[in-house]
Amino acid sequence: MLTNDHIHDLNQPLLDDHHFRFSYLTDLLARRSVEVQPVVQQLINFQVAIPSWALGTGGTRFGRYPLGGEPRSLEEKIADVALLNRLNRSSNSISLHIPWDIPRDVPALQQQLKESGLTIDSMNSNTFQDQKEQPYSYKFGSLSSTEASVRQQAIQHNIECVEYGKQLGANIHTVWLADGSNFPGQQHVRRAYQRTAESLASIYEAMPSDMTMLIEYKPYEPHFYSMVIPDWGTSYSLCQYLGKNAQVLVDLGHHLPNTNIEQIVGRLLHFGRLGGFHFNGSMYGDDDLTTGSSKPFQLFLIFNELVDGAQDQAVTNAAVAYMIDASHNTKDPLEDLLQSVENILGAYAKALLVDRAALQEAQENNDVVRAEEILRDAFLTDVRPLVAEAYRQSGGALNPVAAYRAGQVRQQLIQQRGKLSLSTGL
Amino acid sequence: MLTNDHIHDLNQPLLDDHHFRFSYLTDLLARRSVEVQPVVQQLINFQVAIPSWALGTGGTRFGRYPLGGEPRSLEEKIADVALLNRLNRSSNSISLHIPWDIPRDVPALQQQLKESGLTIDSMNSNTFQDQKEQPYSYKFGSLSSTEASVRQQAIQHNIECVEYGKQLGANIHTVWLADGSNFPGQQHVRRAYQRTAESLASIYEAMPSDMTMLIEYKPYEPHFYSMVIPDWGTSYSLCQYLGKNAQVLVDLGHHLPNTNIEQIVGRLLHFGRLGGFHFNGSMYGDDDLTTGSSKPFQLFLIFNELVDGAQDQAVTNAAVAYMIDASHNTKDPLEDLLQSVENILGAYAKALLVDRAALQEAQENNDVVRAEEILRDAFLTDVRPLVAEAYRQSGGALNPVAAYRAGQVRQQLIQQRGKLSLSTGL
Amino acid sequence: MLTNDHIHDLNQPLLDDHHFRFSYLTDLLARRSVEVQPVVQQLINFQVAIPSWALGTGGTRFGRYPLGGEPRSLEEKIADVALLNRLNRSSNSISLHIPWDIPRDVPALQQQLKESGLTIDSMNSNTFQDQKEQPYSYKFGSLSSTEASVRQQAIQHNIECVEYGKQLGANIHTVWLADGSNFPGQQHVRRAYQRTAESLASIYEAMPSDMTMLIEYKPYEPHFYSMVIPDWGTSYSLCQYLGKNAQVLVDLGHHLPNTNIEQIVGRLLHFGRLGGFHFNGSMYGDDDLTTGSSKPFQLFLIFNELVDGAQDQAVTNAAVAYMIDASHNTKDPLEDLLQSVENILGAYAKALLVDRAALQEAQENNDVVRAEEILRDAFLTDVRPLVAEAYRQSGGALNPVAAYRAGQVRQQLIQQRGKLSLSTGL
Amino acid sequence: MLTNDHIHDLNQPLLDDHHFRFSYLTDLLARRSVEVQPVVQQLINFQVAIPSWALGTGGTRFGRYPLGGEPRSLEEKIADVALLNRLNRSSNSISLHIPWDIPRDVPALQQQLKESGLTIDSMNSNTFQDQKEQPYSYKFGSLSSTEASVRQQAIQHNIECVEYGKQLGANIHTVWLADGSNFPGQQHVRRAYQRTAESLASIYEAMPSDMTMLIEYKPYEPHFYSMVIPDWGTSYSLCQYLGKNAQVLVDLGHHLPNTNIEQIVGRLLHFGRLGGFHFNGSMYGDDDLTTGSSKPFQLFLIFNELVDGAQDQAVTNAAVAYMIDASHNTKDPLEDLLQSVENILGAYAKALLVDRAALQEAQENNDVVRAEEILRDAFLTDVRPLVAEAYRQSGGALNPVAAYRAGQVRQQLIQQRGKLSLSTGL
Repeated sequence: MLTNDHIHDLNQPLLDDHHFRFSYLTDLLARRSVEVQPVVQQLINFQVAIPSWALGTGGTRFGRYPLGGEPRSLEEKIADVALLNRLNRSSNSISLHIPWDIPRDVPALQQQLKESGLTIDSMNSNTFQDQKEQPYSYKFGSLSSTEASVRQQAIQHNIECVEYGKQLGANIHTVWLADGSNFPGQQHVRRAYQRTAESLASIYEAMPSDMTMLIEYKPYEPHFYSMVIPDWGTSYSLCQYLGKNAQVLVDLGHHLPNTNIEQIVGRLLHFGRLGGFHFNGSMYGDDDLTTGSSKPFQLFLIFNELVDGAQDQAVTNAAVAYMIDASHNTKDPLEDLLQSVENILGAYAKALLVDRAALQEAQENNDVVRAEEILRDAFLTDVRPLVAEAYRQSGGALNPVAAYRAGQVRQQLIQQRGKLSLSTGL
Repeated sequence: MLTNDHIHDLNQPLLDDHHFRFSYLTDLLARRSVEVQPVVQQLINFQVAIPSWALGTGGTRFGRYPLGGEPRSLEEKIADVALLNRLNRSSNSISLHIPWDIPRDVPALQQQLKESGLTIDSMNSNTFQDQKEQPYSYKFGSLSSTEASVRQQAIQHNIECVEYGKQLGANIHTVWLADGSNFPGQQHVRRAYQRTAESLASIYEAMPSDMTMLIEYKPYEPHFYSMVIPDWGTSYSLCQYLGKNAQVLVDLGHHLPNTNIEQIVGRLLHFGRLGGFHFNGSMYGDDDLTTGSSKPFQLFLIFNELVDGAQDQAVTNAAVAYMIDASHNTKDPLEDLLQSVENILGAYAKALLVDRAALQEAQENNDVVRAEEILRDAFLTDVRPLVAEAYRQSGGALNPVAAYRAGQVRQQLIQQRGKLSLSTGL
Repeated sequence: MLTNDHIHDLNQPLLDDHHFRFSYLTDLLARRSVEVQPVVQQLINFQVAIPSWALGTGGTRFGRYPLGGEPRSLEEKIADVALLNRLNRSSNSISLHIPWDIPRDVPALQQQLKESGLTIDSMNSNTFQDQKEQPYSYKFGSLSSTEASVRQQAIQHNIECVEYGKQLGANIHTVWLADGSNFPGQQHVRRAYQRTAESLASIYEAMPSDMTMLIEYKPYEPHFYSMVIPDWGTSYSLCQYLGKNAQVLVDLGHHLPNTNIEQIVGRLLHFGRLGGFHFNGSMYGDDDLTTGSSKPFQLFLIFNELVDGAQDQAVTNAAVAYMIDASHNTKDPLEDLLQSVENILGAYAKALLVDRAALQEAQENNDVVRAEEILRDAFLTDVRPLVAEAYRQSGGALNPVAAYRAGQVRQQLIQQRGKLSLSTGL
Repeated sequence: MLTNDHIHDLNQPLLDDHHFRFSYLTDLLARRSVEVQPVVQQLINFQVAIPSWALGTGGTRFGRYPLGGEPRSLEEKIADVALLNRLNRSSNSISLHIPWDIPRDVPALQQQLKESGLTIDSMNSNTFQDQKEQPYSYKFGSLSSTEASVRQQAIQHNIECVEYGKQLGANIHTVWLADGSNFPGQQHVRRAYQRTAESLASIYEAMPSDMTMLIEYKPYEPHFYSMVIPDWGTSYSLCQYLGKNAQVLVDLGHHLPNTNIEQIVGRLLHFGRLGGFHFNGSMYGDDDLTTGSSKPFQLFLIFNELVDGAQDQAVTNAAVAYMIDASHNTKDPLEDLLQSVENILGAYAKALLVDRAALQEAQENNDVVRAEEILRDAFLTDVRPLVAEAYRQSGGALNPVAAYRAGQVRQQLIQQRGKLSLSTGL
């Protein structure tokens, strides 16, 4: 399905238009003394992990509308990510979710990954649902539970994820703790925090020294009065409690209305505690839409912080893990993921074009208009030719979504896997 | 299960404390020249409809944690509401949801309702999910769909609901239209509205002249870029388009952050277009929690508008339908519903105590502090003895939740219906 | 100060780069069968009114930091707008604010306007502040006041504004009603609305038949419990009450968090009630910043609705008035206004590039990804050369802010008017 | 003006009703084994500081409506607070604001304070406005400024405040840093933070060892893109940087929509970093209204955390400073302050009534309904007789607002100070 040769063929009719646009942009940037190839190279190097749980249609608590051909096994999930990566050469790793993705045959899996040129970037634990055989329920919490037995079960599950991670070469263990309360009084604020901190410490101790624990925060949902880890401040304080291998994970949809997320990003970089991102699109809450679909300027400003930090020696933050976390309701999930990666690359490309020396000068001089215009100049530049060129140079499709459609991938997947196949996850 | 006699018995040990509190409140109000019995009588008369879909555990798109003993049929749902009503005598009607509650045997159902002292207050259509046999999908909308065949199917479904309503004596047809879009460009704003208006007109025409159509609004979820009916202004304009039997339905959880809902209530009363309420508790969005659990003052202020309107001859608004719409995740749904009704009655009782003549005088004189204090005086009064007395006089439990627990209702329901019974609905 | 010749000279060194960029864009669009000159012509025709009150530094209730050279009279305000218009040829009219801008000598003013090529687009009344000589205070409201004498005073003030409008050729009378309440109980929701409707009717009757009344809405500030006209639904219902010459005014900063403003725009166009815009930038509330500075995609989506409506014969909405309403705290106000107009033109240019036939086809087919990409293609296109070309063809500066700086305008204004000159307004 | 004798006389006609209500509540609580006098005593001990800047009418950036009789000097401000404290015996200290309240004659001031039974609780610096003689402007920031000279000036100003604090016996130095930016790019996120941290360190070092620095946070206003200290996480990290005498100050109006403030309170108590409160009422943002006027349940839940922490030996947090920070637009400021203190006392009284042993048991057992009802039982109890009794026992007025009105205080103040007197501050 969509071999490299096929992708290459699909590129041919688009090359003329691409060259026209790319060569103009090359000239335009040259006039501003910007060399284009180093930018393209950084785009080529940039990789975003694909979540195994976003390969099928998700939905809300209301209707779900599966479109067919969804992956029925971990192997098929890997096959789908491999396909995406053949198309865009920018998504060479997968986030797994336990227990949805428990590997049955680790060596075979490793072999499949190797052949596909993929790696596992992170393991994600799940204590927000009860699994059939589990002795204790997470109805009233997991790592923060008032019951020691429940906490112990949740800790064990996380340690099991860590073990899978070790086997599969994933050096990130991600904890999204869904614990919280729906009503005032239900949960004791301080004790719930303390129990959580101690539970996390038990997991942290079980991690190898080259593994990072990412601690996600979220202000509401599934609980609607309080979440135990509602904001970056709580994640950060837990990281301080745990040690240097604990880092904050920022999910774009996990903020209260009007939050300045890019400032949080800069703050965490300053503290050396920005561990990773869950990219998605959000207009109201944890909407889990296509990244960049509703707030492209925000996405650019976030990358502006990231690039600024990466180029600043004062920043000691370790490498940031880039991951998508989304749920697809009305779009074909694979098209959505291709769009998301492309929007991320576009935001990154624009951030790379920011004239940082000039920006710093304007900032130091408090020339507000000029500082703003320097940023806007990068934002307003049409960088799509840079992204397309990065795709091209690395062997991908000039237009991944168009290639996906031209290759009739969904139709083939439905033929192979059936109209009613259902992927696990949200 | 919990017969009237049983409830009567459970009241006995509580009577002394109740009399102590009620007699004090009677004296206190007498000192302010307020006669207590007319207030109690209005509380006795007040009825809130119970939604059939809230009798089982709901949940979010994340984990769900059923507690067992949930109603497995429409008959069992009616039995549950009858039980609630025996306990509080304030919930003598049910909102049904089609197709979850399609009656199989109408005469038998009518008989059960009659014996239970219950009525069906409203029918609720569902075009936000695909049903197994339905030829067309609502993935991309229903009444607003670009496809005439889809719209026609959705109209027919609504007309079918109207027919069930006629058979069951429900004189309200409620439309919550979940149509919307997740991405800019997906839906044409003006055409989607116009198609919706025309679809609603087809349903409206099928209604008997003594039936009211309630049009709900919601700003987001299940769609996260736009909803076709996002706000009261849109509901209101659709009502104007349809005719006098179309009215706006206000769901407390369906507003953007910081919305002054009580003002919308007053506005719609002024326009004669307030048709009904969906009560629930909300801190962030459509959280569907226990009514009054997080914003008791707001609930009071809403009832302040309702009572003010009901006592004002200038208001020509027809009777307002009071309904609960909730989803229970961590509480026993029946306890939650008893709490919700009690909180609603408490808010209503406080609103009845507002000294409206004094308030109007303070408002006319722009005595801000005094106007506020008049409202606060009512709000701060402990009216629980009034609500308990209303329960008592009408034959219910002095403390419905305590009686429910003392009667070990849930345990009996689990025995009867099983630990794994699952109710339909959200 | 900055004559046409001077501006022409300042353009010369920029022309080569402009031609390079514009000629590429011309070719690019030609490859998509889009002729560039009609787009440029529409940009040339587009005009945004400048508010007289935004020519000086504003600020918040905290510190204000005037920068000097602010206009000290209506004549100087007109001179400033004339300067802006020489630079961008896109702001040939002024919104006046009474009583800040009461004309002392109408014929002289008309002469100055004529010589400057400017018109007065709208008169804005002010009943949110007490003026020194006024007999009654607006502390507790104006058009909604409980006191007939206060209402009458406010009505008279508005009628006076209408009279000035007639004399100055302004055919828009804008009402921003700041009335509201800070505390529950302070104001009677329904009576306040009714008094407002009747007061507005008195003003409406005094308007000539070719004048439009624009009714603004705002959810909060200066009152923080309720505003009498908090949302578009209230403005719309007041317009229906008044007659066809009453229209809704949308101010971008006057919405609750997460409001989908472009949908409101489409809705009002559908109803034929979109009267005008107050453009500004907002991240939290009525921030009154540079238009487009924080949400450029939203601005584009709003223009997408406007262009879509303008090209659709089904839309019977009269011409929409485009006005800026802003307050400048840390930028030079004139630079801010030049940026705002440029951002507006950019959003308009992008909206003009949307392939509407293809978009409609994708919408009708529910091809969500394609519909979105069609919009994004326009948004991601770098249209700055189109805007610059419109400036150039109409005799303005290729880069108005740069020209303003190169011309050392602020320094000259300070010399003329002094360092401590203070403009009136917010 | 309103001597103790006068207040005593005004109480007489109210005593009968008070005894009726208080004796009932005493009995009611006795039935629940709660002794009433210890609760009353805690209410008597509770003191809230009055901000000098809230004694006159404030307002928004729109109209201001002074009511006359406002204090014209620091001495008159102290006289006003002394009056408030005579009325409620619960506001025996003042927050001063430099430079608005620079003491001219320290010994005389100390004498006046002593005679009035008042103390200065805190000094508040002001670097959000330019003062006439100051060499450098804060237009582009103060402690975070890019200019060393500006930072130095701001540091010196703060140290000056510390010095005044030492002289006046204030052991709190409060920093509300209004620094921020209005536009993306204007300010470098990380460098601005670092400069702020270092500036604060310079001030911290100048403090005596028994002084506490309170660091306030605020998400927006006066800047509308970013604030340097936008959230509790940033305040907290700055406190960690500075040392143990740096603590977080929570202002109720300084949060994004839907923030769970009581959880932040519990979090900071857990960390031992909750330094103090700025009480006020907020529905939308920094509305600065009467405390408890719009969200009385939230205020109760905050006090629930405070009382819970105070009674828990695990909490090592030092004493929390309780201060009002408000701005009065339509009410008489003194009435507003009396209402605010009363609402605070009411919330505190309710929190004291919570049955904590039962609550903990319900929490440990995950009995959600019971935990909630325990809290609600306290909240729904009418505690006004407890507050009145605390007033009475300490020599204040049974109904301070009524006494204030009966004593015709405002009329006397206007006679003394004139109709046009204007207080400084917001």
